[in-house]
Parts: sequence; structure tokens; C-alpha cells
Amino acid sequence: MRHGGDLAAAEAAFGRPAKGWLDLSTGVNPHAYPLPPFSAEALTRLPDPEHVKDLLATARRAYGWSADTPAVAGPGAQAMIQLLPYLRVRGSVLVVGPTYGEHAYLWARAGHQVREAWSLAHAEDSHVVVVVNPDNPSGRTTEPEVLAKLAADLAKRDGLLIVDESFADVSVETAIGQRVGPKGMIVLRSFGKFYGLPGLRLGFAAGDAEMVSELAGELGPWPVSGPALEAGRIALADESWAAATRLQLTVEAMKLDAILTDAGFENVRGCDLFRTVRHPAAGAVHRKLARAGIWCRVFDERPDQLRFGLPPDEEGFERLRAELRNALQTAA
Amino acid sequence: MRHGGDLAAAEAAFGRPAKGWLDLSTGVNPHAYPLPPFSAEALTRLPDPEHVKDLLATARRAYGWSADTPAVAGPGAQAMIQLLPYLRVRGSVLVVGPTYGEHAYLWARAGHQVREAWSLAHAEDSHVVVVVNPDNPSGRTTEPEVLAKLAADLAKRDGLLIVDESFADVSVETAIGQRVGPKGMIVLRSFGKFYGLPGLRLGFAAGDAEMVSELAGELGPWPVSGPALEAGRIALADESWAAATRLQLTVEAMKLDAILTDAGFENVRGCDLFRTVRHPAAGAVHRKLARAGIWCRVFDERPDQLRFGLPPDEEGFERLRAELRNALQTAA
Repeated sequence: MRHGGDLAAAEAAFGRPAKGWLDLSTGVNPHAYPLPPFSAEALTRLPDPEHVKDLLATARRAYGWSADTPAVAGPGAQAMIQLLPYLRVRGSVLVVGPTYGEHAYLWARAGHQVREAWSLAHAEDSHVVVVVNPDNPSGRTTEPEVLAKLAADLAKRDGLLIVDESFADVSVETAIGQRVGPKGMIVLRSFGKFYGLPGLRLGFAAGDAEMVSELAGELGPWPVSGPALEAGRIALADESWAAATRLQLTVEAMKLDAILTDAGFENVRGCDLFRTVRHPAAGAVHRKLARAGIWCRVFDERPDQLRFGLPPDEEGFERLRAELRNALQTAA
Repeated sequence: MRHGGDLAAAEAAFGRPAKGWLDLSTGVNPHAYPLPPFSAEALTRLPDPEHVKDLLATARRAYGWSADTPAVAGPGAQAMIQLLPYLRVRGSVLVVGPTYGEHAYLWARAGHQVREAWSLAHAEDSHVVVVVNPDNPSGRTTEPEVLAKLAADLAKRDGLLIVDESFADVSVETAIGQRVGPKGMIVLRSFGKFYGLPGLRLGFAAGDAEMVSELAGELGPWPVSGPALEAGRIALADESWAAATRLQLTVEAMKLDAILTDAGFENVRGCDLFRTVRHPAAGAVHRKLARAGIWCRVFDERPDQLRFGLPPDEEGFERLRAELRNALQTAA
């Protein structure tokens, strides 16, 4: 499956750009959390279960979960997405989308009946419902009250709602927060995107007590590395950095909007970590940008869409503005 | 399940020692590979699939596998041990042991019929055979030719031999190396123990093409963190460090032997990353050492055994010598 951030593949197809790549193919914050150097112990000792407990307590506060919410950490939200389909008896699964492709792919691979649809109407005859909130790449949000009610309905018939909040750090008002309970709902969080540290591989699952316990069993004794554990405990506790960063990303996303709108795109959507646009010749625009050293995201299954992450600096914004103009003139 | 390295648990039970802990409860090399600082990209970018290919090529050379041996990297050998039982139809499994407890536990949890025995005679009516080589904690080794023949026999009837070489870096002559083939055998390697960096979480599986491919699918797109990827590519390529470290560990393991023998233990076994001894009052010795700030490994299922890792320095060796004498005098 194609993913963002694959610069080696970009380089194999388009060569190495003279000015270097401007990688806008992910939804990762380009302003990484300013970590202190890792302690020697983070590398030289097995991660201590007590440190994991501290990390989970910090994550509960950062994500607005109550102190007794069952939660588990793993090497990325993706690790949870890989496991969840095996923890349910095969049944019917509604993935609200098309969305992040791994959900539908992995549930189907594990033998479930998967349907992708934008309407929650199909939730009634599904055993499992997956909602990415805010959605990637559309940016569509679902009200947390709607999700809480859906989870309660599903819980009554032993169903499960999975809310993938990988981009919810920049959409606090739609996050489930304290509405997550110990039955019928699993919330997933990604550490790397908002904190700009996806290389560390850190993610969380919280909610349904039975599922969290089974996830922990499948992840085994030391799923999170020492560096991820140390970074997570520091960064997730830093509320002022998070608040300031949310504001900064909102400002930068508006700058990105202006550039995309000026370039002629209509209906610019997304969240504050990326914007998604439509263009009838999206593939051609993507290739022209790639030849100019700008790597944005295209989607095999949605050939009319392009997704742009935030440039890291003023130079990047200006480079995108100039190269988008060139690309759209020749692709028109 | 109990594991080594659990100093927080030690502290909860015995309090914090005035001199600090001398942690001998793991089989981790106390002289960690001298890594340069991580690049920013190791943290701020998603791990690149091309870098993973480089890591695997380096691992094949370090472990003596041929260049075309199917191989996959994950967050620790433990991650592979967690997954393997799900990739086989339920059947009969022989775990040669008692050994590292996770093998038998996880195969049984996944619904297989597990038998633990020291003799390979039971291999004939088993679908899967697990051998830890050198064994942990006994240090027993099995000749690689014996294992290669067993794998060939198992392959003929669609069986599988799993060779857990977590401690084989200090037992090069018994490692499978180039005898690993694309059918009937999976070899597991742990990066963290020999390189003294278990916090990074890095391990490998190689051999049977179908199983390696399935492991890769279950591990998903980014199972290895950027720091682990970067450290692995550097450290595994450093043959002179590995050669010098093997010699150093042999010398230090002999020093440990002398201390254990002087203390009165007979039949000291193990490999150059740990030594295992028997004592009728092993539990009492463990507790006395713990009260003196030395944390060694005991085994719930083998209450007469103690395992000691290598002290990190001369002071640690002398502290162990003195406290062992005290502990054995009062426990006698």
C-alpha cells in the first residue's frame, strides 16, 4: 500500500531534486517537539513497566481521558490498527470512508466483511464501525456526541466502535476525550504526527477494557522503545507547547489555504496538519510538482485528489506557491 | 510473566539500595555500542522502506546469512515470538526446554498443543519445534548441523523449526548462519542484548520465505523506529567492534565464573552474556542479594536456579564477590 513520506520511492521515480525535496506528502507537524537528548538508560535498559505506567497516566491527561480509562501504548497507532481485526470474531465491518487505507485493508485481510461508506446509516447492521476523526484525507469531522451514542448502541449488541484520532490533536473540540468508556469503544491516538516525531513510533489505544487488555497481551512485554517512552512522557506533559503549537499550525494551515486558493483550487478541505484539494488532472500536477522537488500525496483510489502537508518554513511556502503556479499552468 | 531488568519491581519489594542497584538480572552486554547521536531525521521522519532494506542487508552480513535469505526486522525478537504462533495452523509444538518462557506461553495461548522437553526425540511427532540456541538460562548449545537436518526433516512434512538465536552473538560457532534456507526454518536474532541497546527494540527473523512474508505483513509498514534503524545500520556493520567485544565478554564471563566458583557454586553454566547456577536455597540467596542491592534473576518454574549477567565494571565484580559471600554464609 502506498503511504506518504516515501522519499526514496520519489527519488527512484523522479531523481534527486537540485534544491532537495520539499516533502509535503505526510500530515506530520514540521516543527518537532524540542526534545532533550535521550538518557543513556533509554537505550541501554529494557523499558521499565513502571515508566510505561507513567506514560499512560500522562497520555490520559493529555488526551482528556479519565484516570481510570483502560489504555495501552504501542509502536505507533498503526500497531493497534494491525492487531484489532484479529481480536474480533469475523463479522461485518463498516469503515466510514474511503479513508486511511490500512483500516479496510487489514479488516478484510483478517476475513471480515468490510463495507466502505460515508453514511453511518450502515452502522446498524455492522458489528464493528471504524471512524477516522478528523478524517484523513477529507478532514471531515464527526461530533463526539454522535460517536458516543453510536458506541453505546454498539455496546448493547456486543459491537465495537473504533475512533481513529490520529489527527485529533489539531481538532480538540471533536475528540472523544472523557466520553471514552470501558465498553464498546476503542480510541486510537498517534503521538508522532502532532509532536513531529513519527520516527519514534508511539501510539495509544484506550477504552474498551477487554480489547485494551487483549491488545496489551498481543503487544507483549516491551512494545514501546526507550526513546519513545522518554519522549512521550516529556512531550505529552507539556501543555503549553501543545497549546502554542495548535495556534501556530492553525495560522500555517491558513497560509497554505491562501496558496492553494490563489493557485485556483476550490473546496480546500482538511485539518490543520494537511489540506486536501481536487483537480481533474491531479496525477499530472503531482508529477510536475515532483519534478520540481515537491512531493505531495496522491491516492490510487481517488485519482482526482491531492493532499499537502505544511511546509516547514517561509521558503517552503514560497517554493510551493511558485511551483504550484507552474504546474497548474502546464497541466491546465 | 516475570522478566529480568524489572528494577522498579525490585525496588517496590526491597527498597532503594544506598549504593544503587547492581542489575545482573538480564543477559544484556553492559558495554553498549558507542553510538553517535541520532540524526534529526531518525525522529522527525517516518522510517524509510529503503533504509529498512539497507538494515536487512547489513544484518544478513553480520549474521552470516546469504544475500538472498528472506528476512524481516521488527521491534525486538519478542515481536516475532508474539506473532509466530498465529501464522501456523494449530498443531503440536515442541519447545526444547524449559527455556525462555514466552515461547511455550504464547504458542499455548494461541491454541497449540505445547510440550516442553529437553530431547529432540519428540520432534518427530511435532509440527513446530522451538530451540533457543544457546539456551537461556541453561547455556546449552545445539550443533547447527543437527538443527539444519531437523529443519530439512520438518520441511518435508510442512513443519517448522524456530531457532531463537537471541544469545548467538557470543556463540558464533553454533549459529545457523548460511545454513538458513527459504523453507522449514525461522531464525530469530536479538539486536539489543549483544550491542547493549535493548531499549531500542530491534530484532530479526530470517529463513522460511512464506513465514517471513507473513511476519512482514503482520508487522505492518513501520514496525522499526528511526533510532533503532539508524543504530542497527551502524552497529551491525562494525565487525571489529563485534570481534573485540566477543573477546572482552569471554574474559569477563571467566571472571564471573571465578567469583561464582569461589563462592561455592558448582556446575556453573551459561553463555558469555550470563551464567546460571543451582542452589537449594536459591530464593533465599536472591532475597539476600536483593537486600544488598544486587538484582539477579530467579525463575518461578525452576526455584533452584539463579542467573547472573555481567557486572559493568571492576567495582561491580567486587561488590558481587563480597555480597555473594555474605548471602551464602547466612543462607547455608
